[in-house]
Amino acid sequence: MPVSPLAPKGGFPDLPVIEGVRFATVAAGVKYSGRTDVMLAELAPGTAIAGTFTRSKTRAAPVLDCQAKLGGASDGPAAILVNSGNANAFTGIKGVEAVEALTGAVASAINVPKARVFTASTGVIGEPLPHDRITSVISDLGGALKPDGIADAAKAIMTTDTFPKGSVRTVEIDGKTVSIAGIAKGSGMIAPDMATMLVYIFTDAKVSFDLLQRYTTDMCDSTFNRITVDSDTSTSDTLLVAATGASRADVDTASVKGKAAFVGGLHQVMLDLAHQVVRDGEGASKFVTVEVKSAANVEDAQKVAFAIANSPLVKTAVAGEDPNWGRVVMAVGKSGAEADRDRLSIWFGDTEVARNGQVSPDYVEAEAAAHMRGEDITIRVDLGLGDMGATVWTCDLTNQYIAINADYRS
Amino acid sequence: MPVSPLAPKGGFPDLPVIEGVRFATVAAGVKYSGRTDVMLAELAPGTAIAGTFTRSKTRAAPVLDCQAKLGGASDGPAAILVNSGNANAFTGIKGVEAVEALTGAVASAINVPKARVFTASTGVIGEPLPHDRITSVISDLGGALKPDGIADAAKAIMTTDTFPKGSVRTVEIDGKTVSIAGIAKGSGMIAPDMATMLVYIFTDAKVSFDLLQRYTTDMCDSTFNRITVDSDTSTSDTLLVAATGASRADVDTASVKGKAAFVGGLHQVMLDLAHQVVRDGEGASKFVTVEVKSAANVEDAQKVAFAIANSPLVKTAVAGEDPNWGRVVMAVGKSGAEADRDRLSIWFGDTEVARNGQVSPDYVEAEAAAHMRGEDITIRVDLGLGDMGATVWTCDLTNQYIAINADYRS
Repeated sequence: MPVSPLAPKGGFPDLPVIEGVRFATVAAGVKYSGRTDVMLAELAPGTAIAGTFTRSKTRAAPVLDCQAKLGGASDGPAAILVNSGNANAFTGIKGVEAVEALTGAVASAINVPKARVFTASTGVIGEPLPHDRITSVISDLGGALKPDGIADAAKAIMTTDTFPKGSVRTVEIDGKTVSIAGIAKGSGMIAPDMATMLVYIFTDAKVSFDLLQRYTTDMCDSTFNRITVDSDTSTSDTLLVAATGASRADVDTASVKGKAAFVGGLHQVMLDLAHQVVRDGEGASKFVTVEVKSAANVEDAQKVAFAIANSPLVKTAVAGEDPNWGRVVMAVGKSGAEADRDRLSIWFGDTEVARNGQVSPDYVEAEAAAHMRGEDITIRVDLGLGDMGATVWTCDLTNQYIAINADYRS
Repeated sequence: MPVSPLAPKGGFPDLPVIEGVRFATVAAGVKYSGRTDVMLAELAPGTAIAGTFTRSKTRAAPVLDCQAKLGGASDGPAAILVNSGNANAFTGIKGVEAVEALTGAVASAINVPKARVFTASTGVIGEPLPHDRITSVISDLGGALKPDGIADAAKAIMTTDTFPKGSVRTVEIDGKTVSIAGIAKGSGMIAPDMATMLVYIFTDAKVSFDLLQRYTTDMCDSTFNRITVDSDTSTSDTLLVAATGASRADVDTASVKGKAAFVGGLHQVMLDLAHQVVRDGEGASKFVTVEVKSAANVEDAQKVAFAIANSPLVKTAVAGEDPNWGRVVMAVGKSGAEADRDRLSIWFGDTEVARNGQVSPDYVEAEAAAHMRGEDITIRVDLGLGDMGATVWTCDLTNQYIAINADYRS
């Protein structure tokens, strides 16, 4: 599969070693051959682990296991084991047994409490996970752990992704330097409801579980919960943030400015990764920002933004580089949000195409069309009703999306 | 554009003359050239007219005008004027002026009260309707009215449709024969919320407005409100049912059996037209029936059915003839309905693929794959929770959908 035209121009970023974290990867042959498909991360004793997960009613066994463990035992080392190629979702009791086998094997191999072993699986839904292929290589994985393996880990968790996704920010907390580095996978079945896909963020900041969980939930809401590729929500979405504390920069006792620096860095890493997931949206040729303002309330702003971002007719118009603002009007109308047709204004990029319910007097289609030929498209909508806004990010809907998904499994 | 492979094999049905209705069509050059794009229907004095309309918040001027007139003046003749090529939607005061001009011109030309002239426009959103092109040919249209013009009318209202849509049923009401004949257009922007697209049904039954409106709303709910092509809701959806009374078969005073015969005939015509709209869904290669049963309540059954029917990943799997039931699980999970993963069972056609939350013990993928290679696909889901069900109809999502919509306007 060719790499997405929207892949970051500089390639995978140079991610620093996070003290207290070691990685290993292996080709276990879960489904793919000739590539790594399992990654293990080992976390130093006392690492706080926060997370958010899919709210799907059919969520997978590893997700339920992670949710049960979150906020539990906090002593001792911890581990994260992820495989690609099989989602271990909708696999009944076999799914639970697979999670038991995997977490037990990791606990024994690297001497971590089982209650601190988090797993995730991504790939095909409904087929039993051949977990013996993974457990049989766990001790090899344990022996291969090394501090600088995060780039390999980003590759091992890929499925239909066309490029590995990573991001890093360095912030100062009251004079101490802290790094926040994350990896993500995901390019289809992206319409997160709570978290999205698989995202792992590591920091050497020292943060209590409660505070880290609060920050994670808040930042997720304005990043991963604001992206959509195809309006389909995964059964396996998992976001974990692990804070090893190795830097001794204590966020809980930090100054207001120090706390803000940490949250800001975390937000930037999450937003960057969320945007990379959209840029690798299946078949994407355009990155689309949808900004809604002057809504009566924030829920309405989100409804309108997602109605536009998820509309197949808007997304195909973007693919066709067509400034078809009539379809934006349609999406506002169907969104379920309070809207007044005759107060509605619309921009493509900086070009106002419609004002107060009809085409703008100075509208020149060639200007909007020029914007649509770019790689980064902005659709702005002013509802003219109140003070609330929302921004979401999506991609276009192309032939390539159909090609990828009409034969993904076969 | 090639005719949809799902077009009715027998072509357009042989629709009878409905006494009290005359049709005319003309090529006014609203947008298209070389084809008819305006149809006029004249209705005998006393004809009752009921209807349902889009619930879009950005609905078009002709829709608002029809809604204001429905249930109003009932004396004298009536008329329906429809143009294709331009939706007269999101056109502000110009849109209202266009409706005024069109209804006024029809009223003068064929001597019908303006309050009984209903219009609709379908096509591109946001461009002012060049209504003078239509008003200048209204008197020609009036002179061309004839009882047997309904097939031409079905063609004149097409936009991206690949075949004209018609349906007829004949029923007996207490010994008198009544005909119900309808036409429809629509193939994209189909996710009706109240009614769908343009649908005109004519009958020589005698029915009061109140009763006709009640039947129309009820039957719409189980037909046009149960189809989706692309989850996008039009600004212009209009369904009108006109009862001329020419047969003297009076539904209001009919026996219970007579009333049931009328409602049954109306339901069959509406369901047939709704299915034809889906079969002409943009780019469709498969007609898909989604049946949900054993839901906790009917709202949940509908949520699950539409979540499956609107999922791009389910629709592309159908296009690829892939019995990818994992994506059905995903759609159930994201639907927002109450669901228990471990009580969920799924069938493709007659093949049970999953039972109680995991793959069926006897599942043979070749059997499900054989069903997916057919033209008519059935996806059945049993939620195992209660007694309520819902059925919706949709089509697959193909490359052709993208091709049609990435360059529709250009």
